[in-house]
Amino acid sequence: MMSFQMARRTARMNPSVIREILKITERPGIISLAGGLPSPDTFPIEAMREACARVLRDSPREALQYAASEGFGPLREWVAGELRAHGMTVDASQVLITTGSQQGLDLVGKVLIDAGSLVAVEAPTYLGALQAFAPYEPEVVTVPCDVDGPLPKSLGSAAGARFLYVLPNFQNPSGRCMSDARRAALAEAASAMGLPLVEDNPYGDLWFDAPPPAPLASRFSEGTVYLGSFSKVLAPGLRLGYVVAPKALGPKLLQAKQAADLHTPGFNQRVVHEVIRDGFLRDHVPTIRARYKAHRDAMRSALEAHMPAGCRWSLPSGGMFFWVELPEHVDAVALLPKAVERGMAYVPGAAFFADRPRRNTLRLSFVTVPPEQIHQGIAALAATLAEAA
Amino acid sequence: MMSFQMARRTARMNPSVIREILKITERPGIISLAGGLPSPDTFPIEAMREACARVLRDSPREALQYAASEGFGPLREWVAGELRAHGMTVDASQVLITTGSQQGLDLVGKVLIDAGSLVAVEAPTYLGALQAFAPYEPEVVTVPCDVDGPLPKSLGSAAGARFLYVLPNFQNPSGRCMSDARRAALAEAASAMGLPLVEDNPYGDLWFDAPPPAPLASRFSEGTVYLGSFSKVLAPGLRLGYVVAPKALGPKLLQAKQAADLHTPGFNQRVVHEVIRDGFLRDHVPTIRARYKAHRDAMRSALEAHMPAGCRWSLPSGGMFFWVELPEHVDAVALLPKAVERGMAYVPGAAFFADRPRRNTLRLSFVTVPPEQIHQGIAALAATLAEAA
Repeated sequence: MMSFQMARRTARMNPSVIREILKITERPGIISLAGGLPSPDTFPIEAMREACARVLRDSPREALQYAASEGFGPLREWVAGELRAHGMTVDASQVLITTGSQQGLDLVGKVLIDAGSLVAVEAPTYLGALQAFAPYEPEVVTVPCDVDGPLPKSLGSAAGARFLYVLPNFQNPSGRCMSDARRAALAEAASAMGLPLVEDNPYGDLWFDAPPPAPLASRFSEGTVYLGSFSKVLAPGLRLGYVVAPKALGPKLLQAKQAADLHTPGFNQRVVHEVIRDGFLRDHVPTIRARYKAHRDAMRSALEAHMPAGCRWSLPSGGMFFWVELPEHVDAVALLPKAVERGMAYVPGAAFFADRPRRNTLRLSFVTVPPEQIHQGIAALAATLAEAA
Repeated sequence: MMSFQMARRTARMNPSVIREILKITERPGIISLAGGLPSPDTFPIEAMREACARVLRDSPREALQYAASEGFGPLREWVAGELRAHGMTVDASQVLITTGSQQGLDLVGKVLIDAGSLVAVEAPTYLGALQAFAPYEPEVVTVPCDVDGPLPKSLGSAAGARFLYVLPNFQNPSGRCMSDARRAALAEAASAMGLPLVEDNPYGDLWFDAPPPAPLASRFSEGTVYLGSFSKVLAPGLRLGYVVAPKALGPKLLQAKQAADLHTPGFNQRVVHEVIRDGFLRDHVPTIRARYKAHRDAMRSALEAHMPAGCRWSLPSGGMFFWVELPEHVDAVALLPKAVERGMAYVPGAAFFADRPRRNTLRLSFVTVPPEQIHQGIAALAATLAEAA
């Protein structure tokens, strides 16, 4: 019998809890508020069709050939220009195009984490980041947070960490958006400590009434690695993201990228650049905002109408998620099968904590299913809770 | 001044020697026989155009949405069927679609290599594999080889290795193709030792007169991880490859894939499946073979016509490369700038050795430039050698 000796790091790797839940809950008839999937109604299919045709007409040989690991030059320029408009000091040479921003997290882990290194995260935090970092075997420490994100005064708990991973805009899973004052204080505290920040911003463009404050990377540029994505403003199936790193990190991130997949598909990069180059997103993103805001309002109404006393949530001002706190004694993990029996699904919040999971929390996505179904789904959740009470 | 503490593994990571050479040699007027780039004349542009249009007409929402980490089901089925036709026992559930086969190498490294693990390679070997493995900090050991590949009787030098990495078909860089007898002996020796094999097959379809013998994976299926790619039969800019692993490795490779980039672009997977589903490659690949064979013949004539005495090469029976041995005292690394002055470029063979580089070797690609230029390029190389003699 043949056996393989696996690397020690594989003991840290696990199936994605969310993907396992999604498999169960994607059966027909279930109203799934579990997925973190953008609404396919927002995908710019016609623009994609035209862009594919133009790229294959004007530069097919370049688009289908091997290409630079850094990414497609005009797309890097576009990203840099966009980020400068958000207050960051960025040169196109600092932009590394990645195969989704998930790859950015993997490359950051590869370059910055040794086995046993301290890595600091929020509570709760994005599960995919924990999974990207896990194979590099960090010790993960949770920084105390309030509804505004990490508490600058408690940043001492991250002393010596390779970085603090933070998702300031409409966080997955909590939906919270860090205030301007908190960003200023956090950037100042991190700078004073020499604590690098890894700022993940997949949702920043999905604001409802006002754009979020300027990124941490604009306040602590020499210490912040910034991650962005086209998944939520165009389409995730293209797998296009980017990392903007301080110059000291650039060469090693690039070498890690070369080793990981040589380069992100050049065809996809050229198609996306073709879609966005003439200002497409200026008209397109507002349509996503309006749609998601209407969905958010539908979920707010549904929560207010149906949820029993003792449940709490804050109104997200952008993004895709409500974060619900159930009464202290209710275990959202144990409750999930009962909710599925009643025809709805959510993600238990416990999955999003690096330690001390708060089992009475859950995440609800409001963007994937239509408003009528949101109401039905929340009613089913409320009935499940009432039965369990 | 902000500083980052980098992971120890970054000390093992270096810029790709080849990519650095390519930058120098891609200036206009240089005949570059250095690149490992498929000829863009072989890219199926019209088929791609139609496939993009069909995918965006028939399944745009699915193609642009998040998708399964394993890959697109029908593409996995197609790959499994293709490999069964090559004598492998493969179920579609064992096929993991990757972002180019380079990502397959990265995932294999992540799952199988600990810092200090022994990893065995051929001499010479594919540079990109060395780069993919390097961040996992292996001790690389070279197995003694002859013109047929690794010597089964010398496999003891790989005892205790996590795996032997081997590229049996028209190897990059040597162009050699392992004989049937050598494959049988190597598979038997590896099986007897319990030594896992990682079999990389990007070039197997590019044979000129007869297909290569059956893969190692068909002879030692329980111990062989097999890597394939669409880069050489369709186009590399799509970044589509695959890993077929024994069932014991499947779950951890999948978890590594999820952590690395969630999934390979679903759009690309569906477009490629749309291109190939009805037998497109049956007609297309023979046109690539015929073209590359004519190029190979042109380079053979040029080498025979121009190269000075004391230089040796074997005739590759497929793939993209000639491997040339210069007289013992000639250093191909030192010679390169002089060749570039004369208007041609190659890759010094030293880059392809994990240890004890043979500095009197070089790699020539015959597929990227047209036959007239191949003659000019080889003449320039010969003149450079004559001058140096």
